[in-house]
Amino acid sequence: MRDDTTTFMAMKGAGYYSRATVGARDVINAAAPQVAQALAAQNLAPEGGPITVTDMGCADGGTSIQMWGKVLGDLRAALPGRPIQLIYTDLPRNDFSQLFRIVHGQTEIESRLGAIPDLYPMASATSFHRRIVPPGTLHLGFSATASHYISETPCDIPDHVHMVGARGAVRDAYRAQGAKDWDSFLTNRAAELAPGGRLVLYNFGIDEEGRYLGHTGGPSMFDTFARLWHALVEDGTITEAEFAATNFPQVYRTVEEFAAPFRDDGSAVSRAGLRLEQIGTKVTRCPFAAAFEDDHHDAARFAREYIPTLRSWSEPTFVSGLAKTRSATEIAAIVDRFYASYEDEVAANPEGHGMDYVHCWLIAAKAG
Amino acid sequence: MRDDTTTFMAMKGAGYYSRATVGARDVINAAAPQVAQALAAQNLAPEGGPITVTDMGCADGGTSIQMWGKVLGDLRAALPGRPIQLIYTDLPRNDFSQLFRIVHGQTEIESRLGAIPDLYPMASATSFHRRIVPPGTLHLGFSATASHYISETPCDIPDHVHMVGARGAVRDAYRAQGAKDWDSFLTNRAAELAPGGRLVLYNFGIDEEGRYLGHTGGPSMFDTFARLWHALVEDGTITEAEFAATNFPQVYRTVEEFAAPFRDDGSAVSRAGLRLEQIGTKVTRCPFAAAFEDDHHDAARFAREYIPTLRSWSEPTFVSGLAKTRSATEIAAIVDRFYASYEDEVAANPEGHGMDYVHCWLIAAKAG
Repeated sequence: MRDDTTTFMAMKGAGYYSRATVGARDVINAAAPQVAQALAAQNLAPEGGPITVTDMGCADGGTSIQMWGKVLGDLRAALPGRPIQLIYTDLPRNDFSQLFRIVHGQTEIESRLGAIPDLYPMASATSFHRRIVPPGTLHLGFSATASHYISETPCDIPDHVHMVGARGAVRDAYRAQGAKDWDSFLTNRAAELAPGGRLVLYNFGIDEEGRYLGHTGGPSMFDTFARLWHALVEDGTITEAEFAATNFPQVYRTVEEFAAPFRDDGSAVSRAGLRLEQIGTKVTRCPFAAAFEDDHHDAARFAREYIPTLRSWSEPTFVSGLAKTRSATEIAAIVDRFYASYEDEVAANPEGHGMDYVHCWLIAAKAG
Repeated sequence: MRDDTTTFMAMKGAGYYSRATVGARDVINAAAPQVAQALAAQNLAPEGGPITVTDMGCADGGTSIQMWGKVLGDLRAALPGRPIQLIYTDLPRNDFSQLFRIVHGQTEIESRLGAIPDLYPMASATSFHRRIVPPGTLHLGFSATASHYISETPCDIPDHVHMVGARGAVRDAYRAQGAKDWDSFLTNRAAELAPGGRLVLYNFGIDEEGRYLGHTGGPSMFDTFARLWHALVEDGTITEAEFAATNFPQVYRTVEEFAAPFRDDGSAVSRAGLRLEQIGTKVTRCPFAAAFEDDHHDAARFAREYIPTLRSWSEPTFVSGLAKTRSATEIAAIVDRFYASYEDEVAANPEGHGMDYVHCWLIAAKAG
């Protein structure tokens, strides 16, 4: 479910893969000390039952494999007497076979997990809006770039494709769905956590300066999506109803919204004993824009390399907006044309384009 | 990894699916009382940590979904106070997405698992030749039609494609590999099992009358495979080396061989505290042959319906025997021709053809 769907990239070979996922991977690798500290802070007994960690919204696991290798390798050395369960989670349609192939070292991506004794990798396809592991058994819940997916879209966004471009009642409806799903995410995690257990979450969101994914100063990615998709209405390719039905099932929450359930002592989250320990934001530069601006300066190449990574995670949303009566051929032609128009625009005028990541990260602890 | 690979069948629609898997499913459903009894015999405390069960070599889980719905639904009613973890296992290349879609009720196959509260379905891609879950945590290990897959083939079978047709030193080498892998399967399970935990295993094997899969009186399926594959050597389509390199990575063990580690007090299995409680054999009629003989009497239809189910699990072995220098087109043409020859043979002379299942089942317990 991560936006950096790596399966698609893997098909393009190792070099392409590493470019397209380097940003997401670096964000996760940089979180390794926080994840390690969240485990260390629990003063886990040297002997006892399994230590359980989850990686929620793992996609194919490629972007977190280095982090888990480091953190769980160190944990194994520190606590040789306790088994470790690493439970990857995503939705049923995720490519779990590719995940397991990466985890078990059957791809070109290096996995150190196989060298860690008494480590048990598993997967779950239970939504993070429900309980994934038995109550009181979770020591560390980790999630990167996944919690912005909401359980359902509350309504169509008539004049945009993403809630960041919605206004008034529509925006309120998405924010309300986002708040409801965030509460449910946290209360389910609170039930899963063992006493003293921790969450380390890197969420897509809106930072203190109003920045969010692909909107950090230059042309806003979601505005470009909306404008170019609407251009297909204007030239008669798609209908206004199809435009309206095209809605990313996502909510980008603000720092305030992420913190809200913790700041209300009467909330279900607070009553379940979950406390916010740290919260912050982080901007990570788009690796394609960085390569263009700092290195190759070739606008056509930038456009050619950048658009497929946008397409890899956004295409299902554009396809789902189109009328069910259209043939597969028709749908493919429309979507090809749409991304070609985005590529043309970037090639002609590359300045400021790019998909910088904006994360709101937080660490929370269950009362011990 | 089950021979009744249901993913292939699912693509052909519900009716085809149920015909192709009805035998395997019925075997598993008939085992439900044994599985329930293996749990009941443990007198599990009404409160406590998770009850963990595994389904090893689950493929897409379609053939065991009814059994688990019944057994775990009843267990939930009997022990409302304990979470249940159902861990499906197979190798990384298994279609775990299809498994999860079936488990979570996203296919046409009915799943009752979603209605069982406090049940946590998961998956592991750790081979059953290694530990799948932490030591001492497993209450019930179940496996149907999977343990005949060996961890490696010890040598080529020059004059056949399956060890059931091998002789002398070659047969001895396969039997030795089978014994080694069986020991490793059982000792890994012994380590996983909680005190009093049970195994319920339905293994493909050779029964007291020498019967095995597709060899219960009529033309022997593996002999037919070998003869028709060798006919492609004789007409120059494939080479003798390719024939020799075609080996099912399987060992069918006898009842004696299954029981041997238990009957030796000094074996690793016995020393690990694993005891054989019951052992037996069971023949299940081929549903395609039954439909032909009891119902439609149409030889061409029998051949047309029967061969794809053989193909679904045997094709990878025939493909892997072919030279790596052959093109995909060439390989597809050879394999198409091979299965067409089998279909022609059944259509022309259907008597006695069929893939009757022969299982050696056993129940074992870890010392309490």
